[in-house]
Amino acid sequence: MTNLYDIAAAIRRSESILICGHIMPDGDCLGSVLALGLSLEAMGKKVVMAGPDPIPAIYEFLPGVERFKTGATPDGVYDTFIILDCSVPERLGRDYQDLLTSKKVIINIDHHAGPGILGTYCYIDTAAAAVGEIIFDLLKLMQVSIPVETAINLYTAIVTDTGSFQYDNVTPGTHRRIAELLEFGAPGAQINILLHEEKPKAALVLLREALHTLTMSPCGKVCWMTVTLEMLKNTGALDEHTEGLVNYCRSIRGVEVGLLFREILEGTYKVSLRSKNIVDVNMLAVQFGGGGHAKAAGCILQGALREVQDKVTREAVLATGGTA
Amino acid sequence: MTNLYDIAAAIRRSESILICGHIMPDGDCLGSVLALGLSLEAMGKKVVMAGPDPIPAIYEFLPGVERFKTGATPDGVYDTFIILDCSVPERLGRDYQDLLTSKKVIINIDHHAGPGILGTYCYIDTAAAAVGEIIFDLLKLMQVSIPVETAINLYTAIVTDTGSFQYDNVTPGTHRRIAELLEFGAPGAQINILLHEEKPKAALVLLREALHTLTMSPCGKVCWMTVTLEMLKNTGALDEHTEGLVNYCRSIRGVEVGLLFREILEGTYKVSLRSKNIVDVNMLAVQFGGGGHAKAAGCILQGALREVQDKVTREAVLATGGTA
Repeated sequence: MTNLYDIAAAIRRSESILICGHIMPDGDCLGSVLALGLSLEAMGKKVVMAGPDPIPAIYEFLPGVERFKTGATPDGVYDTFIILDCSVPERLGRDYQDLLTSKKVIINIDHHAGPGILGTYCYIDTAAAAVGEIIFDLLKLMQVSIPVETAINLYTAIVTDTGSFQYDNVTPGTHRRIAELLEFGAPGAQINILLHEEKPKAALVLLREALHTLTMSPCGKVCWMTVTLEMLKNTGALDEHTEGLVNYCRSIRGVEVGLLFREILEGTYKVSLRSKNIVDVNMLAVQFGGGGHAKAAGCILQGALREVQDKVTREAVLATGGTA
Repeated sequence: MTNLYDIAAAIRRSESILICGHIMPDGDCLGSVLALGLSLEAMGKKVVMAGPDPIPAIYEFLPGVERFKTGATPDGVYDTFIILDCSVPERLGRDYQDLLTSKKVIINIDHHAGPGILGTYCYIDTAAAAVGEIIFDLLKLMQVSIPVETAINLYTAIVTDTGSFQYDNVTPGTHRRIAELLEFGAPGAQINILLHEEKPKAALVLLREALHTLTMSPCGKVCWMTVTLEMLKNTGALDEHTEGLVNYCRSIRGVEVGLLFREILEGTYKVSLRSKNIVDVNMLAVQFGGGGHAKAAGCILQGALREVQDKVTREAVLATGGTA
């Protein structure tokens, strides 16, 4: 595996750079792309930051986010293609996958386990709580200055991928990096308000309706909720307001696996999986063609809701050591 | 004001010590009392840790919590009385207030603004995110070793009083202390699971029912929910499961003040107040005989629910700059 010095050298050699994250961008993906992109631009590089999918409204406060291009791959000639926070080629989206076979220098920086993406340079640190941590280390190693805009992007990347420093990916180094980012001017409390306290009332109405669907397995170790397209329509909530709902399922005493079944198209369900202590939900998600981390993963299934729920909850119960 | 060196010296001179927190103990109060108490005991002091009110079930995992005596002041002779996290004599509870007029050495350590409690030694640091931060600094200054049990108590004190490091009381020093506490063995993720993910299903049913009461002021700046004794009875949830509900009110876009009206006796309501940016809810609570911090405070009112709500929401709307 490449080290960060090799990546820094490769970046210094490049002149024009396309940086992208993954489909359905989250805080770590967007914050990391923006922090790196704006810094490389300040170094005099030609930089384009992009990704296939729209940006959720809660991230609209990120400095530089108006520069992030969504949709098809942007036109232009780039000698280097940097991929952040993307565990498999599929998560690049179809257009961006085509770039993998181009003759560009490909730099892949990630913190997910798994096969990953083959690049000219690959830096995969599964011990990093967020790609934002790696970008922070890279910028410091490159002796790039960290303006407040970069600090905000990196703070957001780390706080979102650690569930406000609550997940077991958090290390002493996570907190020390955050201490530095606060000193570089990131207004931590204000960022948390923007991330968590700018919901429309509809998001709370959706939470209420989802809580009405709360269901426990007979063994009490698996718990799930459902969000249908009809619920979104009736409440006026958006897709992004389903974020975090799965954690309510996991939060019940005795529950080991929490699941959220979210209808994304009629008859198509995105399943979010979260585990508390022992179950590797990445392994569970992989069974259904998905993936993620040991404690947080996702997959997509088609079929009638009841069938999809039976299939996934049965495997989840088995994974907790129960009998289905 | 005393400094921590004077307090360390006073503690070294003492032989038998009573340490207490405040009524309705929270994570900062309990974690701080236990961390200090167990450390002083390891130094060879005779220590009793106590408080007037029962300990909420979520804190039963705290190391040493079985040693914490609740109810009337414990019998025994103490040369020193240490008070932690207690802003006014009333928050000691009636029995403990009597000790203030005794001839003991009184050491008062707190992070609340306000008149406070007069002690032989007073150390009030309003910049400390939690009393747990001050106790950590004191133990280090006293060169006391920090076993994992102490690290768990201090981590809990700090994580609870900062809302998982999200509030604006968090400083770079908060994160650096937490980094050290993780290195001393505090299992951060596990503590967060014990604090937030060991709820009975009834707590989520209560949340759902409370969300049914969600009400916005016409100006959209004040939002409130209600929990009645009947709701607690019907859902089977406990008083402690109302903790945090007020934050849902504050989390809506445009809301500046969130309120929770919680019936604690028939016709008696505890009001929790939270503000987002500008309103000092401590000032609001003081108007109704309560108190707290600028962004989080509480008060108790008697009367019919509608009257109590009209009174408090009118003042809250005025405080946001609106007209009632």
